[in-house]
Amino acid sequence: MSIQPIHADGRVRSLPAQVAPPRPREDARRSETGRVYLVGAGPGDPELLTLGALRRLQQADVVLYDRLVAPALLALAAPGAERIYVGKRCGCHHTGQAAIHALLIAHARRGQTVVRLKGGDPFLFGRGGEEMQALLAAGIAVEVVPGITAGLGCAAYAGIPLTHRDYAQSCLFVTGHTQEGGGAEDWQSLTAPRQTLVVYMGLGKLESLCRGLITHGLPPDWPVALIEKGTTTDQRILSASLADIAALARQQGVRSPALAIIGEVVRLRQPTAMAKSAVVAQRGWYK
Amino acid sequence: MSIQPIHADGRVRSLPAQVAPPRPREDARRSETGRVYLVGAGPGDPELLTLGALRRLQQADVVLYDRLVAPALLALAAPGAERIYVGKRCGCHHTGQAAIHALLIAHARRGQTVVRLKGGDPFLFGRGGEEMQALLAAGIAVEVVPGITAGLGCAAYAGIPLTHRDYAQSCLFVTGHTQEGGGAEDWQSLTAPRQTLVVYMGLGKLESLCRGLITHGLPPDWPVALIEKGTTTDQRILSASLADIAALARQQGVRSPALAIIGEVVRLRQPTAMAKSAVVAQRGWYK
Repeated sequence: MSIQPIHADGRVRSLPAQVAPPRPREDARRSETGRVYLVGAGPGDPELLTLGALRRLQQADVVLYDRLVAPALLALAAPGAERIYVGKRCGCHHTGQAAIHALLIAHARRGQTVVRLKGGDPFLFGRGGEEMQALLAAGIAVEVVPGITAGLGCAAYAGIPLTHRDYAQSCLFVTGHTQEGGGAEDWQSLTAPRQTLVVYMGLGKLESLCRGLITHGLPPDWPVALIEKGTTTDQRILSASLADIAALARQQGVRSPALAIIGEVVRLRQPTAMAKSAVVAQRGWYK
Repeated sequence: MSIQPIHADGRVRSLPAQVAPPRPREDARRSETGRVYLVGAGPGDPELLTLGALRRLQQADVVLYDRLVAPALLALAAPGAERIYVGKRCGCHHTGQAAIHALLIAHARRGQTVVRLKGGDPFLFGRGGEEMQALLAAGIAVEVVPGITAGLGCAAYAGIPLTHRDYAQSCLFVTGHTQEGGGAEDWQSLTAPRQTLVVYMGLGKLESLCRGLITHGLPPDWPVALIEKGTTTDQRILSASLADIAALARQQGVRSPALAIIGEVVRLRQPTAMAKSAVVAQRGWYK
């Protein structure tokens, strides 16, 4: 057993006083094999990109990007960088996960600096773990650059604190898929007291989720916020009770991507009182 | 009930092709009362600041910052900006939450643009919700700028995916405080199957937490990673089993801030096998 102290790789100390300019490829250290950056692009607003993600984009020879990555973000890559769409819901083709792995490996083996640009954060519901595994198995160096996950981005832009000493001291992040075959243990977790529940990609199963939460103990008037296209200029926020939100979402024609925040913290959005089924559309500013 | 479509406030469309230069105070709209930005500074590495956070820092007249905010981040604020330390563990004084609220309100009422710079994300274990409430109650406009929370930052820099289709489909974020008076429901949530548990500020209670998790059903050899000063140049990662991690942390003298990631995903960090009680210290690169 040994401890190796971490030595600075220069990233922190070399950060300029103002924003990092496009840097020379100081850490590219060209070799026979390139490398892959798994980069979180954040939930939508290009301003939610990190400085580190920007720097990698500027260094990339090739960018493989998802469906939810904004064009304004792709524009930040070096002008000569190749941009490859690998979204999974393209009308014309479907890039499977194995094909994405193969593409990443092939480009890295040509000695290229590859950015895999993923919506949100690569390691929370992003399949970034699988991509990391595939690359490591192929002997390719990987660095992971975290991103603002949709849950945090939507909460901030909606003005809903995910935790608050008076209401919620923990926060559970799940996907719509979690509900598949969910047993008793799952419902117990989903309905735990003093907890905020954040549901990604849950629009298709919103009705059965809300019904289940009520069946397993949450009050029918428990508050929910449903945030469509969160942090983008098209953001819409619907808020209603557990009993009403699914019908409201149908009525208002909410579409993916949508994220649900479920818990008492949702009431903090309007300090006075939350009108039942109120549909709000606002962004970031409160007064 | 009405839906107001969100109109662009210019932030997205006006993002320049390269990084935002220091902008004129286009949205400061000076009035009698200033405004407050609750800004997430990320977990440590200044490269994890977002472009939006940087822009607010550059516009600030005054920055109120926490203990864990890196000096390199403060250096990004405008040269003339006043910087006020309001950390809660200063040797000489202790700035209580009410005093922080009063300071924010007082500066905003002078017509200043105030940045409240908080480690991680303002809305996840950050008391940002309380600050938002206090400001709204005082009639002061607030905008919340999300940040990379420590859980995501540490996971990325440690190479541990928080979710993975084969191991964990949900992720629960808790603080060490959650364990206080925890009843049966809490343990049920903490030990839910196919879930990754992320514990903030849990170093002081690590031993009782691990003992409780084992008592309530997790295997004693369940993997844990403990990440000290995550994403900084001093980052250290300890990994061990639930049964061993607390003793290892004591032996190695781990200090705050430290974050624990508990779950099978921790094993993915080394594709071969996780040596029992292995202490690793590495940062971002894998090969």
